[in-house]
Order: sequence, then C-alpha cells, then structure tokens
Amino acid sequence: MRLISFGSDNHSGVHPLLLKEMVEVNSGFAPSYEQDPWSNELRDHLKVMFKATEVAMVFNGTAANVLCMQLALESYQAVLCSDVAHLTMDECGAPEKIAGIKLYPLKSHQGKISPEQIKEALVRRGDQHHSQIKMVSVTQPTEYGTVYSKEEIRQIKKVCRENDLYLHIDGARLANAALSLDCPLGEVTEEADVLSFGGAKNGLMMGEFVINRNSQLKSGLKFFRKQSLQLPSKTRFLSAPFLKYLKDDLWIDIARQENRMAQRLRQGLETIEGVEITQPTEANAVFCKLPKDVVKKLRKEFFFYVWDEKSFEVRLMTSFSTTSEHVDAFLEAIKKAFS
Amino acid sequence: MRLISFGSDNHSGVHPLLLKEMVEVNSGFAPSYEQDPWSNELRDHLKVMFKATEVAMVFNGTAANVLCMQLALESYQAVLCSDVAHLTMDECGAPEKIAGIKLYPLKSHQGKISPEQIKEALVRRGDQHHSQIKMVSVTQPTEYGTVYSKEEIRQIKKVCRENDLYLHIDGARLANAALSLDCPLGEVTEEADVLSFGGAKNGLMMGEFVINRNSQLKSGLKFFRKQSLQLPSKTRFLSAPFLKYLKDDLWIDIARQENRMAQRLRQGLETIEGVEITQPTEANAVFCKLPKDVVKKLRKEFFFYVWDEKSFEVRLMTSFSTTSEHVDAFLEAIKKAFS
Amino acid sequence: MRLISFGSDNHSGVHPLLLKEMVEVNSGFAPSYEQDPWSNELRDHLKVMFKATEVAMVFNGTAANVLCMQLALESYQAVLCSDVAHLTMDECGAPEKIAGIKLYPLKSHQGKISPEQIKEALVRRGDQHHSQIKMVSVTQPTEYGTVYSKEEIRQIKKVCRENDLYLHIDGARLANAALSLDCPLGEVTEEADVLSFGGAKNGLMMGEFVINRNSQLKSGLKFFRKQSLQLPSKTRFLSAPFLKYLKDDLWIDIARQENRMAQRLRQGLETIEGVEITQPTEANAVFCKLPKDVVKKLRKEFFFYVWDEKSFEVRLMTSFSTTSEHVDAFLEAIKKAFS
Amino acid sequence: MRLISFGSDNHSGVHPLLLKEMVEVNSGFAPSYEQDPWSNELRDHLKVMFKATEVAMVFNGTAANVLCMQLALESYQAVLCSDVAHLTMDECGAPEKIAGIKLYPLKSHQGKISPEQIKEALVRRGDQHHSQIKMVSVTQPTEYGTVYSKEEIRQIKKVCRENDLYLHIDGARLANAALSLDCPLGEVTEEADVLSFGGAKNGLMMGEFVINRNSQLKSGLKFFRKQSLQLPSKTRFLSAPFLKYLKDDLWIDIARQENRMAQRLRQGLETIEGVEITQPTEANAVFCKLPKDVVKKLRKEFFFYVWDEKSFEVRLMTSFSTTSEHVDAFLEAIKKAFS
Repeated sequence: MRLISFGSDNHSGVHPLLLKEMVEVNSGFAPSYEQDPWSNELRDHLKVMFKATEVAMVFNGTAANVLCMQLALESYQAVLCSDVAHLTMDECGAPEKIAGIKLYPLKSHQGKISPEQIKEALVRRGDQHHSQIKMVSVTQPTEYGTVYSKEEIRQIKKVCRENDLYLHIDGARLANAALSLDCPLGEVTEEADVLSFGGAKNGLMMGEFVINRNSQLKSGLKFFRKQSLQLPSKTRFLSAPFLKYLKDDLWIDIARQENRMAQRLRQGLETIEGVEITQPTEANAVFCKLPKDVVKKLRKEFFFYVWDEKSFEVRLMTSFSTTSEHVDAFLEAIKKAFS
Repeated sequence: MRLISFGSDNHSGVHPLLLKEMVEVNSGFAPSYEQDPWSNELRDHLKVMFKATEVAMVFNGTAANVLCMQLALESYQAVLCSDVAHLTMDECGAPEKIAGIKLYPLKSHQGKISPEQIKEALVRRGDQHHSQIKMVSVTQPTEYGTVYSKEEIRQIKKVCRENDLYLHIDGARLANAALSLDCPLGEVTEEADVLSFGGAKNGLMMGEFVINRNSQLKSGLKFFRKQSLQLPSKTRFLSAPFLKYLKDDLWIDIARQENRMAQRLRQGLETIEGVEITQPTEANAVFCKLPKDVVKKLRKEFFFYVWDEKSFEVRLMTSFSTTSEHVDAFLEAIKKAFS
Repeated sequence: MRLISFGSDNHSGVHPLLLKEMVEVNSGFAPSYEQDPWSNELRDHLKVMFKATEVAMVFNGTAANVLCMQLALESYQAVLCSDVAHLTMDECGAPEKIAGIKLYPLKSHQGKISPEQIKEALVRRGDQHHSQIKMVSVTQPTEYGTVYSKEEIRQIKKVCRENDLYLHIDGARLANAALSLDCPLGEVTEEADVLSFGGAKNGLMMGEFVINRNSQLKSGLKFFRKQSLQLPSKTRFLSAPFLKYLKDDLWIDIARQENRMAQRLRQGLETIEGVEITQPTEANAVFCKLPKDVVKKLRKEFFFYVWDEKSFEVRLMTSFSTTSEHVDAFLEAIKKAFS
Repeated sequence: MRLISFGSDNHSGVHPLLLKEMVEVNSGFAPSYEQDPWSNELRDHLKVMFKATEVAMVFNGTAANVLCMQLALESYQAVLCSDVAHLTMDECGAPEKIAGIKLYPLKSHQGKISPEQIKEALVRRGDQHHSQIKMVSVTQPTEYGTVYSKEEIRQIKKVCRENDLYLHIDGARLANAALSLDCPLGEVTEEADVLSFGGAKNGLMMGEFVINRNSQLKSGLKFFRKQSLQLPSKTRFLSAPFLKYLKDDLWIDIARQENRMAQRLRQGLETIEGVEITQPTEANAVFCKLPKDVVKKLRKEFFFYVWDEKSFEVRLMTSFSTTSEHVDAFLEAIKKAFS
C-alpha cells in the first residue's frame, strides 16, 4: 500500500519498541501455551491492573468478545448492545454460532446506548419462549470514536445491578478511551464484570485479553479458550511486547499520538466548507460526510472507508504511525478536491 | 526456561531469517485481513503448490483442522481418525463443539491407521440414528513421529474413493514428512481433499493454512474462518515470513535440521542400555521408555514430556534450534543417569 | 381451565375426528421412526401436494423452522424476517444456537415485510465481517393474523430470485392462510424454497413438517432431524390423524371455523365503543386495544394474552373448538365491562 | 406390519388405559406448554418421587439425554459412557452438536462399565488440550438388557464422588430395571445427579423427563428445553396418561409383562440347540446368536434386529403387547427353522 491509510488502526505495523521486544525474546527455548516467564508476568500484571480473577490471551477481538459471552452466559441468554456494535455488525455471527446466544441491538446515538433504553428493553423476562437478557455490552470507545464518560458507565452499571445483568466492555481500543478520560486502564473498566482488552489496534502485532472481574462467572476460561480455537503456542512473542506496552506506559504514548492526530484532523476538517462532521471526536476516529466525487478523488492517495454508503459518511482512523504530515497532506488534498 | 527443551518444537523461537522478515515488513501502512501484498502472493503461491481451489490462513493447527471439517462435513457426519490423533486427544473437543461433528477413533499402530480398519469401521451407513462417516483424517507425520509412505496414503485414499469419503491430512509438521519422504510439500498431500498445513512447528512464529483441494467442498471459507474467530488483522507479519519460508526453501533447511537431530538422538539412544526405543523415528520425534528415576534426574537439565504415564514412554522432539550439542549433552546426561 | 380461552389455538384439544384416528391405529405392531404405513403414505401425499423433494415430520414449529434453516443455510449466513416473527421473538434463540445463523429483523407493518425492505437490507454482501443474508422468512398468516396475498409473496420471491436468496414460509397456521386466500395449501406456498407446515394449531395434537421444495438445498434431512432431537418413535399416532386431516379436507373445515369465529369476533368488537381494532383480521386472530380495567374484568372468565404491555393491545385467537356461544359471551362480557 | 415384532418396544402402540386417558382429557380448553393441571400435578409427583429439584418433559430420549448434559456440563467437558451406549451409538452426534461436549466410550461388558474402568479413564485432568471428564453416564437397564445392581451403581457413584464427577442415568426403560430390582423408580435412581426417565418404551405414546436431582446443576431447564426444540404445546395429552401410568402403578404391570415375556422367550430359547444366548436377561431384551439362514426364515413372520452383522447376534425386545402366544409362536418358528 503506497497510500497513506486512515482506513483502520490495524493498517499500521507494529510499534518499533514493541517489535524490538519480540526480537529480543527470540533466543533459546521457552515453554509454550502461556507458560513462559513473560506470559506469567503479564497475567499477574493484568490481574492487578484490572482487579481481575482470571485473564487469558486470545488472538483477536472477536474471540475475546465471544469468550466473554461464554464465561458469563448460558446459550439461552441474550445481550443488549448498540446497533453499530462490532459484536453484532462485524463478527459474522460468531457470538451466535460459538456462544449460542442472541443479541438484541438497540438504536444507538453517537455509538452509545443509554440506561433508559436498557430498562425499556427488559421485556419478557422469565418467559421461556424468549431469549433472556442477561448482559449489556458497551464498546469503549464506541465504533463512532466517542467515549462513554465514567458517569455514563456508572449509570449503565446501576441499571445492570438493579436488573441482574452483567456489564461487558468491548475494549478493542481501550487505551484511547483511557487517555481520553485521563484515567488508568483499570479505572475505565472498573464497572465491568468482564471485558475484552485489545492491543492490536494500539501498536501491538496481535493479542487481546479476556479479563474476568467477577468471580460469579464460569470458571474454566482456559478450556473455553482452547475449545474456541484460541490457544496460542509461542506465547513469548505476544506476551513480551504486551508486557512492555503496559509496564513502560507505551499505551499512553501510542494512544496520545492517535488521539492527537484525530483532533488535528478534526480541527482541520472543521475549517473546510462542505465537510460535515457527524460525530464527536473523543478517541482516534473522525466521522464526516463528504461528497461522492471528493471521496473518489481522495482515494487516489489515501485509503479510508465509506461507513454509510447512503449518506457518504466516511470514517477516518488515526494510528500510532499517523503523523502530522499525513494529516496535513490529507487536509490539503481534501481542500484541493473541493476546489 | 534455562533448560534445553525436547518438549515440543514450539518451545523454540522463530527462525532468525523468518523473524528478520517480520522486521522488514514493518514500515508504512498495509491493508489488513489478508489483503496486503505478501498475503496475496502467499495465497497464490500456496494454491499453485498444493493445486488448491482455496486457501486461508488461521492462527493455529486446531483451527485449521476444525475449518477443514466445516468445509467438508455437515454436523451429522463423522470422521475416522487414529486414537492418538491430535484431533481427538488434544483439541479439547473443538471439532465436536465448533463443527458439531463426531470423531470415531481407530486403534493406531505406530500412530497410523490402515485401509482395513477404515473399511471395517464403515457400519450403519444410511442409518439415521448413527453419525455418518464421511471423512478419514490422518496426521502426517503422525503423533508418534512416523510417516505414512506415499503408497500407504494412496491405499487409504483408494478406500476413501470407493466409499465416498473425504481424506483430510493434518499436516502440522508437514515439512518433516516431506523431507522424510524426499518429495515436495505438494506431492505428500496430493491425495488429500483438504488439509491443514502448519508453520509454527517448523520455525515460524505462527500461522497455519486451510488448504482446500476439492471443489466439491463448501465455498465460503473466508466466512467460516471469520465466524470461527480466526481472521488475523495485521497479516503482513504472518504472511511475509511464511512466503520466505516457502520460496527460499527454508522449510527444507529447517526440517532437515529437525529430522537430523532426531536421528542423531535416536542413534545415540540405541547405544544406551536400558533405553527402549518404542517407535520408528521418521520425522523429528523420538519415543522411548525410560526408568522413572532416570526421567526424574534428566528433568533437572532437560524439558520433555512423559507421553504415557503408565509405561513411562517419553517423547523427545527436536526443533530447528536443537543443536548437536544439545543432543549430545542429553545423551551424556542419560548415560550418567543410568550409571 | 374453567375459562373460555382466546389465548391460543393450542389451548384447544384435538379435533374429535383426529383423535378418533389415533385410537383406531392403536392395535398390533407397527414400525417406528416414520416407517409405518401411515407415515409412508403421508410423506408421499405431502410430496405431491407441495411439489416437494423431501419432507420430514418434527415435533413442533420451532423445530420445523430451525430444520429449514439447517437445510438451506451455512452457519455464517443470515435470515431476514419481520421484527415480530416467531422465529426471532418466540424461539428462545434456537435458530442461532442450533443452526448457528443470524437473524436480521425488519420493522414490520401489520406483521408483514416488503420487497423494498428486503432490498434495502442487502448490505455488505461478500464482506467477511458480516453475516451473509441468504434467506427471507415470512410467516403466513403473520403473527398479527394478516395474510400475504399471492401477489405480495410473488413480489418478495422476485427480490429473492434477483438476489440469490431462499424464501422460507413459516406456516404454523398455513391452513388459515389458504382458506383466507381460497386456494389449496400447495398453492399458497408455491414460491417457497422450504417451509414449515404446522398441524398443532389446527386441531391436531402435534406434528409439523419440514417441506423441502428446492433440490439445491442440502440433503440429509433425516440426519439433521435426528441430530436436532426431532425423530419421533411411535409415528403412526402422529401420521394417521395428519393424513386424515389432509385427505378428508378436515383442514378446510377447521380453518373455516377458526377464521369465521375470528370474523364474528371482529364484527362484534367493531360495534363496541372504546375498542380499537389494530390489525386487519384475515385469519384466526383479532388484535385490539382495550383499557386496562376492562382487561382485568374480562380475565375472570376469559383467557387471552396482552400482546403489548405498553399499549394494552390484546390478541384474541380462535380455534376449532371456539363456538359462536364463546364469541357472543365474550362480546357480552366486554360490553358489560365497558359499562 | 402384519408381522409380530420383537424389533423394539416402540413397535407396540399405546397401552389402552393410557390412550383412554388421552381421550378423556380432550374436552374444553387447557393451557398449553405444561401449564395445564395434569402437567402441574405430574411435575409435583415426579419431584417427590425422584427427590428432584426440577423436572421437564421432552419429546424423546435423545432430547432428555442431551438436556441432562446441558444442565450438568460446560461444552469443554466430557462424559464417560459404555461403547454400546445409546448416547454415543444411536443419537447421530446430538450430544456433541447440541451440548458441544465429548463422549469417551469405555469397552463394556454385558452393556456395563465398571468403577475400575472409570478410574483408569481419568487422565489429563486440568490439561487444557483435553476435554475434561465431568460425568459418567450409565444406561439402566443397559442396551443389552442387563441391569446394574444397586451395589454396582453405588460403587460407580463412589468413584464419581471421589473424583468430582456427576452420575447420569439414562432410564429410557427405567421401569424394567426397577421391576427387575424389585424397588421403586425413585430408589433405582437415588445415586443419580441427573437422569432421563422414559415412557415411550413402556406403553406411553411419547414423553420423557429430564430429572434434575442436584441443586448444583445449572438452573434454567425450561429455557434450555425451549432452545433445544423440546417444548411441547398441548401437554395435557402427554401429561395425563403419564400421570396415570405412575399413580396407578401401571408402570409395574407393563414392566412385569415385558420382563416376563423376555424370561419366557429366554427359557424357550435355552432349550433350542443351536441358539447361543449371549447376554443375561434381566429386563425386556434377549440377545442370542442365530445362524444366518435361520434369521432369514424367521423374518418372514417376525420382525427383529440383527445387532451385530458380523456375529449374527440378534436382539429380541418384548413390549407390553407381547403375549405368550407371540413368544410361543416365535419359539415354534425357530425350532422349525432349525430343523
């Protein structure tokens, strides 16, 4: 790809310091299957950080989400999520197929769902003909690059508590939310019963974690993981960089660069007549509407996704390797395309 | 692990030339989800190499096996495999849970099953109460480090053809079999309808392939993959080294080192009184029985698995990073332990 | 239940002529598992009637629906249905869990979905992240007691044909639709690729059929049935009455009584001030809004369901055993409750 | 079927007193889905009888077995059963597909498994690569018509208790075992954590029960049932006869007739030279080897199954409608065939 990509934060490679870590652990023998010293230390680190009862590394975010469902739910239960949630829109039916559960999407506003919507959706509880809602899943930051405030999460959790529901946080880009809220990773998820914590969108090569924070959930995470095809073998290469990412606060540096570039992009776009910004920019995504011909011209040099084929709302993601130069070049190009 | 490991070929790291490749592709943007240039080239390469209709990368061997089942079978169908097959012994019920199918294990001899056993197992076909056998799965090389000859595979395939069965080859260590049979990778699998081709046990960090060689199988591999939690994102890091591994014939170098070290180990063990070698050594594993106290002493310096807790048969795996020094040190230690 | 029930057509017993049939076949031995003569004849009858390639009896409508999905779909595929469809609202997630598929509900009008909605919903085809729409399911008559005209079904089928989608008809009360449209059962479903044909809501004790009308669908229906826990044993007792129901046109008598009683009820309700009829009455259900206190009073003598807890829309189902006296008593009671 | 059948106890119809009960409840309205008075009383009766925490009616034995697995197991867990168990041989992979679990068959002797075999099979516990054994399933009476003594069951339970395993009893023909052991139905299952209790093989038309006797098992049985396609609607017709069957001790009369006819058959066969009886006759099945040509001749008048195509071991089942005349006619015929 010769193009500059605002397509996804996984269009970037691996942060050089993290890749270096992979090279450094490549000597001699190490136990596989998360028994190497880096994996052991990483697990301990994550348990403390998230006040977790159990954690397990998996390959990708879809797997992390599905394993969270498997830990918390029986197959006859259901999950409330937003209608733009990755869970329901971008996982090819994996939660349904693998966990056997049902998803009830709620109409979202700026990617978010509200406590009122959740309450209203709680119908037919106890009715054997109907999948039983037992979990609320929120994405933090949302698929629209917005961030739930700590108070918003608290209010959602309140409804969960009052109605015997688990709260799941899909944190594929958790670092961006934490940076945005200016709080530690553990604090942004302190209301979650179970969460998916992702690294690949924040400069790591791969690796997401299932974080179980509720001892009432099922045990046997490692068996669910293996049966769900998620047991990595040469885990030192995934754990060592992840450990560095956390211990050296690299997640802050990376998320800061990502969020800043999104702000720079947004501020630039705001000054361009004809660009309609459509969502708040609180993490590392900017959403705006662009005329079809502008999109067409831009695509010669830049890669990005049209999010809504009807309204021509586009999504622009920044990543750790997005530079000011990339952003400015894009802004120039867009101005030129409009003229 | 300060120890020298004969535990598994995944106790070694990544072959330096392959890791170098990962470092080299780490610049700029690249499409994710197997759309990068290395992935495109790799897919084309594999299709030619295996005369395949479709191929897809997945994270591990269990996933590759399960996806092969999903492509070839309906959930009411069943697979004949050996009673020591990874498929039935080491995948925590993933084939049953994810593909919904049933496995009928056959008593193996030196890890192999025979055409006669297959024929004899073909009972109750058409009987709706009974899972319908539709596939034979063989591991090549087997879990005991033996290798089916091309003629043995041909005879198994003959039974398959005569009885409307698919042939699956679990090739987690396919390179070792090909080297042992002195033939190209594509030739050792030419009778397979569908196969799992693994890299992680041969010096790669990760990455296995589902190779579909039969156009009668289901289409939609990419969707099955995604739904089975197996879609990697930053695929350049998996594809680039895999491509090098194949194009530069690194698989030969690696498999040769692995198989040679296994031979050296075996020859050494044969000279030691009290060691009972239990399986032919045709790939990179040596199986032998050792007295319990010898095992105990050896474990201070060496890591390896007791394969059968009752007979104290142990498995010794060699890998690309196993050196003559490692082997000789082990042989010395074992002699010392016996004295 | 001392009460008169408008709760469901399964609150009635078995039509006396059908129960008589069960008694009559109760002598001597008969093969089980659909191999008895009545089952054989019934299957042949149904194949001719529905121009079907394969048919199989199952226990209930949920099972028939799920088996239709299993025959037509891979687990990564999805179904468009109405948002009030039994499939998505009343099957406790069975289609998701057992067939592994995903349902995309469309906002219905009077229980129906339109060709335009289907076309609009056909997004992200070929995108591996998204469950792939491959089927449209309509309920005939709908859950609101309305009936798709033959032209409406034809238009939906046209969209299906143009977009490579299967058409499924959930015919739990097919007889009522056929009577309403004044056409044979086979004609009302002539556009379906696969359908569920139910008897229990029309005077039979039990028994629904999976009717496969498209030879492109998967074979192996009998195995899918057994694996889905749906193989009945003493099938003569299910098949003999079902055969009589069809051959003696009892389905017409029963559906006529049911539909007529619904019309009588509706006409009576229309004359009562304060009753708001909310849906067309085209089969054997009448929907109307009643004040909460009226509902409360009525429930002392009559059983029926409040369909929407918010608007107090109630559903009144008639069945073969609903008499004019039942209807008139209800109408009297409602008048009294209002006064 | 003009033939006299020793094929299966489900080749008989419904016991006249039980069918009469179905006719008698066929008047007026009754709630569906197990809310009718007969279903309520039956549930209460069964709870007391089996000291159960929860019970639910399902359609057939396969479903009862699978629901027992769903209540007791996570999908990564496994069940030890005999190699001739219905669970593994005759359910078309339903336990694997629906409950996601794995079965490990043990070589049976006279249809039974022993405490020693169970202990020996308990390997690799805690090893994430291997399905975790968590249940033992025994069939009572066994598929070979033998009956575990109370002491045998107690010894198996002891191993279960010592090893944290659940005990499941597949009681598709439980009445025959209870009669054979001369004890109440509740006593023959007092060591079970969960059991399948069947009626269809003992003169009922249909209906089996999932009986949960361990409050540690999962709750939500009714939801699992619905999602597993097992919720019957017009339940009065299944519950009323089942209630009579239990309350009037009809199960004893029926089982006595069945077991007696089996004894008569066995005693007759013992006197015939050339007939090799192969299993003890403790319930309502007789197994013996017959020459191929004898089988061929007999089949003109009698229906029965060849159980083992290689040894020509045949299974002869008696049922409530098997008479002395049937048995004697069969014995005569066999004598004639031999001569």
